[in-house]
Amino acid sequence: MADFDVFEAGDVVLQSGMTLRGARLAYKTYGALNARRDNVIICPTWYSAQHTENEWMIGEGKALDPSRYFIVIPNMFGNGLSSSPSNHPAPYDRARFPQVTLCDNVRVQRRLLKERFGVEAIALVTGFSMGAQQAFHWGALFPDMVQRIAPFCGTAKTSRHNFVFLEGVKAALTADDAWQNGWYDRPPTKGLRAFSRVYAGWGFSQAFYREKVDLAMGFASLEDFLVGMWEGLFLGRDANDLLAMLWSWQHSDISNNELYNGDLERALGAITARAIVMPSATDLYFTVADVEGEVRRMPNAECRPIPSIWGHAAGALGLNPADATFIDDALKELLAAPRG
Amino acid sequence: MADFDVFEAGDVVLQSGMTLRGARLAYKTYGALNARRDNVIICPTWYSAQHTENEWMIGEGKALDPSRYFIVIPNMFGNGLSSSPSNHPAPYDRARFPQVTLCDNVRVQRRLLKERFGVEAIALVTGFSMGAQQAFHWGALFPDMVQRIAPFCGTAKTSRHNFVFLEGVKAALTADDAWQNGWYDRPPTKGLRAFSRVYAGWGFSQAFYREKVDLAMGFASLEDFLVGMWEGLFLGRDANDLLAMLWSWQHSDISNNELYNGDLERALGAITARAIVMPSATDLYFTVADVEGEVRRMPNAECRPIPSIWGHAAGALGLNPADATFIDDALKELLAAPRG
Repeated sequence: MADFDVFEAGDVVLQSGMTLRGARLAYKTYGALNARRDNVIICPTWYSAQHTENEWMIGEGKALDPSRYFIVIPNMFGNGLSSSPSNHPAPYDRARFPQVTLCDNVRVQRRLLKERFGVEAIALVTGFSMGAQQAFHWGALFPDMVQRIAPFCGTAKTSRHNFVFLEGVKAALTADDAWQNGWYDRPPTKGLRAFSRVYAGWGFSQAFYREKVDLAMGFASLEDFLVGMWEGLFLGRDANDLLAMLWSWQHSDISNNELYNGDLERALGAITARAIVMPSATDLYFTVADVEGEVRRMPNAECRPIPSIWGHAAGALGLNPADATFIDDALKELLAAPRG
Repeated sequence: MADFDVFEAGDVVLQSGMTLRGARLAYKTYGALNARRDNVIICPTWYSAQHTENEWMIGEGKALDPSRYFIVIPNMFGNGLSSSPSNHPAPYDRARFPQVTLCDNVRVQRRLLKERFGVEAIALVTGFSMGAQQAFHWGALFPDMVQRIAPFCGTAKTSRHNFVFLEGVKAALTADDAWQNGWYDRPPTKGLRAFSRVYAGWGFSQAFYREKVDLAMGFASLEDFLVGMWEGLFLGRDANDLLAMLWSWQHSDISNNELYNGDLERALGAITARAIVMPSATDLYFTVADVEGEVRRMPNAECRPIPSIWGHAAGALGLNPADATFIDDALKELLAAPRG
């Protein structure tokens, strides 16, 4: 039995010029919408994750407290629950699934909020990694609606180096002949394992490995970590789904739309939401320097690095309790502050 | 016509317990050995490179001045000139080429120096990346012989994170079915290109890509850089050669021998050579932190980071003139200083 709901968005014309026909946005809500419909928090999903992988942020006593807030986790297109290469009907299935931007994603998410729940004001959008990127998009696309954003371990626009890192994982996956340009009947497992191994160097920091935190997590050796943690993470995912989300990631840019016409400075300047932006101090692809460069152009934002050696994974799944507390504390502070 | 000489080392028993039969060490010399045989500089090769790719360091007016010094560039086993999977006779050819450590390499290099040139004292060993790792090996294995070392963009022992990065490029290469576990007749070009793309994210820093130095180098776009620079760099290499050298890199450890029995602190402490060790400030896999940790245990060494945004490539080929000058200046200073 599915533990989520679906918003049938109809035929969605995408930025790419293609149409996502019968678009389905899978989502889950936590807590209740209040009478004024102003206690809404949105928490979009990250690369390869589904709504369940954001639930570590939700709970009584936490910032995302379902006894106070109406929390909505929309699943990103391509993640296997919302419309994705692996579940979309022909002829737009599998390798023919259209390219979907995060702008496309967030616009459908807004329709969900308005059409299904009658919501016009969002107290907070927060998210990790590609979830952070969607939070930036919410702030730039709907500044009158979004009161606060708290993106962590993510940027508004994907940097060129981040793009190259993703080219690497993509090349590793697609080097497997079994991938068959996306028309595989059996999963390209060798490519998925290669994808995972490349990812392993990027997902945690040099210091994480130096301090052998992988062993402290319960893995018997570095190789045990590479197989158990990393190959385990991606082996069960659909290759086309991974590649669809990867394309969305590579092309994340809050200014690439008719509102801003590629003027990133203007798009960042339009984010009037009060913002606490949290890069991880040791993130290898969403770097502090990149985040600082963006935050400088946001009128109501603070850059607050997470002091962690967990690299990008500082924001993942609450794996490191200290990082999870750091993020939760910032969210509480932000929610207690006046709206932007 | 070959522009190098070969030292026929005979049957070399390796640390792995295998024998490299009829081992051939290709090398090239520059300048002349003086009467006291004490003007020797050794400059070992780096990953996938051959002696010609160290020649940028040599020239009149440079530290490695052939009018003053007798400079020897030994080619690393596996690099396609010295004994390698691609040139070794059966039955030890191709996928059966034995695992060779940098300790094995440096011990044969020492035999070259002693047996062919009668050299007992080395003024300086310097090198980039795996060349740096060999310089550390020289210092630890032959402390009475080596007066100075100047490793740049490398460590004495390969860090766990560095190992993981290499697992990634290896997995990308070997994901190609055409690799055939090393028994290919035609090169696994798809895997070699994937290998290159993964490498591209690691070889330069985030700041290098942020500042678009790739475009300043003359490439028309990021994709042009990935194909022209990176795929061009590795596509012509032999896959088994690359994997053989990668194994040597992953297992670089100056203490993994009967002298030090895995006691890295003791091995570092035994390097009495005067040393200037130069990590690149933005190197993503031979990090400043790792180098600092090693230098702290060396009795006569200084850690002097190269202030560069070129990442690991700060030490490559003199690509960035400012970095090349920084390195050359340090080498001059070191050569002018008393021996360690």
